[in-house]
Amino acid sequence: MLMDIKAADQIPDLADIFSAQQRINGKIRTTPVLTDPHLNAEIGCELWLKCENLQHTGAFKFRGASNAVAILDELGMPGDVATHSSGNHGAALALAASTCNRRAWVVMPENSVRPKVEAVRRNGGEIVFCAPNQQDREKGLAGLVAKGCIPVPPYDHGHIISGQGTVVIEMSEQIPGLDIIITPVGGGGLISGSAIAARALIPGVRVIGAEPEGAADTALSLSQGKRVDHYAVDTIADGLRAIVGVLNFEIIHDNVDEVITVSDEEIIEAMALAWQRFRLLIEPSSATVLAAILRSPGSFAGQRVGAIISGGNVDLEHLPFMP
Amino acid sequence: MLMDIKAADQIPDLADIFSAQQRINGKIRTTPVLTDPHLNAEIGCELWLKCENLQHTGAFKFRGASNAVAILDELGMPGDVATHSSGNHGAALALAASTCNRRAWVVMPENSVRPKVEAVRRNGGEIVFCAPNQQDREKGLAGLVAKGCIPVPPYDHGHIISGQGTVVIEMSEQIPGLDIIITPVGGGGLISGSAIAARALIPGVRVIGAEPEGAADTALSLSQGKRVDHYAVDTIADGLRAIVGVLNFEIIHDNVDEVITVSDEEIIEAMALAWQRFRLLIEPSSATVLAAILRSPGSFAGQRVGAIISGGNVDLEHLPFMP
Repeated sequence: MLMDIKAADQIPDLADIFSAQQRINGKIRTTPVLTDPHLNAEIGCELWLKCENLQHTGAFKFRGASNAVAILDELGMPGDVATHSSGNHGAALALAASTCNRRAWVVMPENSVRPKVEAVRRNGGEIVFCAPNQQDREKGLAGLVAKGCIPVPPYDHGHIISGQGTVVIEMSEQIPGLDIIITPVGGGGLISGSAIAARALIPGVRVIGAEPEGAADTALSLSQGKRVDHYAVDTIADGLRAIVGVLNFEIIHDNVDEVITVSDEEIIEAMALAWQRFRLLIEPSSATVLAAILRSPGSFAGQRVGAIISGGNVDLEHLPFMP
Repeated sequence: MLMDIKAADQIPDLADIFSAQQRINGKIRTTPVLTDPHLNAEIGCELWLKCENLQHTGAFKFRGASNAVAILDELGMPGDVATHSSGNHGAALALAASTCNRRAWVVMPENSVRPKVEAVRRNGGEIVFCAPNQQDREKGLAGLVAKGCIPVPPYDHGHIISGQGTVVIEMSEQIPGLDIIITPVGGGGLISGSAIAARALIPGVRVIGAEPEGAADTALSLSQGKRVDHYAVDTIADGLRAIVGVLNFEIIHDNVDEVITVSDEEIIEAMALAWQRFRLLIEPSSATVLAAILRSPGSFAGQRVGAIISGGNVDLEHLPFMP
């Protein structure tokens, strides 16, 4: 069994993703898929939403975190886990750890919004607050690792990537004959796992990323043929502000057909559309996939499209489309 | 086949509900069920939400409307259908009619909120506006019937009731061993169909209704042993303002164990809870079931509870828990 587990700095393949699925089966929710015939007629494609906003902790992140922690169990590596996060990965790691009887420590910026702090605590995580900048986050995490915690990063990690890829195994069973899979792109954990699974499982499928203009480091990296490691980030999509990871960019470069960038205005319009047509209140990061389809209808016309709705953790007190 | 269809003024039984399920199968969505282990630990029962907020048109209403219109097809009764509605039944009937190549006419109060007007139109319905009072609504509907439309009322109708009951067939398959089913109570379409199916399908199950204090005509009717036909209605739960129907009350009287009333404050707290824990933005009417569980934990302690989330059509511009 141990021999089957690749190192975390290696690129996973379909076998690793199937192993992840078996590992996290029973812990994660098989999330539903939704389509709306009227909307399909309007937008000219057959759109299916894969509702990871209904996943435990409200985001796909729980898949990867569950896989990474379960692998520690299999490898016989006891101990607390740690990460830094201002968002969904922190809550996901907290829950994944607690279901394996471990403690999770999450370094969070002291200006984190209340619902996200509460979500980490509710799922059993211990919070270490830090100043709201990258240096202090990493310093906080380094301090925890020095005390013996095992770091579980949010996306640039093979076990996280293979966990995220399990969403496409489900989709391929729920929606036969997909022509396109589209996911948001932030650090690249979701799209890289999805792309590996999609390429191997679904003949002829196209894999498309959706990225905010204000965090379009992956689109820029692709156009330059190499990963950029900084970008002046400014977008409402708080889940997509990270720079694409090293492992992630290598996978994206080799397996993703296109990254479509969208404006914050388009993201907000797409959030409202998801609400009106599907009664789903989705977070801005998730709305990028709908915004991309609305912006580039020609890329999707007549196709069966699986769009991964990555999460639903909106700060209700700051809904962008409220009057 | 025709002989199997009971008249609309008769009380349906399980066979009618199974017939309804076969009739609307492929038209409706099999909606997901969700549970949250942490919340369960806090509230002391195993709570499963049946997400009819994710049903087509955002409410369970599409089940009953689909069944009623499909029966007209089977009975060889062509023609337009009509109802009066300020809410979910109008949009549901519009969609049900359009999928059977009929037109639906919906009498709506001229002060109806914009999203509900848009929902009827988007689903192919024709709107006749009227003054916002019961007399003008009924006059408007009578005018349509005089022109040849077939009336399809929202709840006091056997074919509607059997359509709504299909939700419990699904639940009984999705969540084995339910001890309790709880649904909101307005006109009584959902709870009456649910109670008939639950009694027949799930041994020993208890059926509980949740009703706003400001529209507690069913609780009052039960306590008096006969249906009251007026009530000074004042509640945020806009889907539950109707007086319980005649057929509905008879079924409730014979099959429902208890109706728990909740305040508007409790409804608003429960809406916020559904958002925080399940990332579901549910309409106030749906939140009554959660509010009832929080108010009367003793009735649910240690039980496996299926709570029907009836709909998700919140007016986003008037969220009650916004600051």
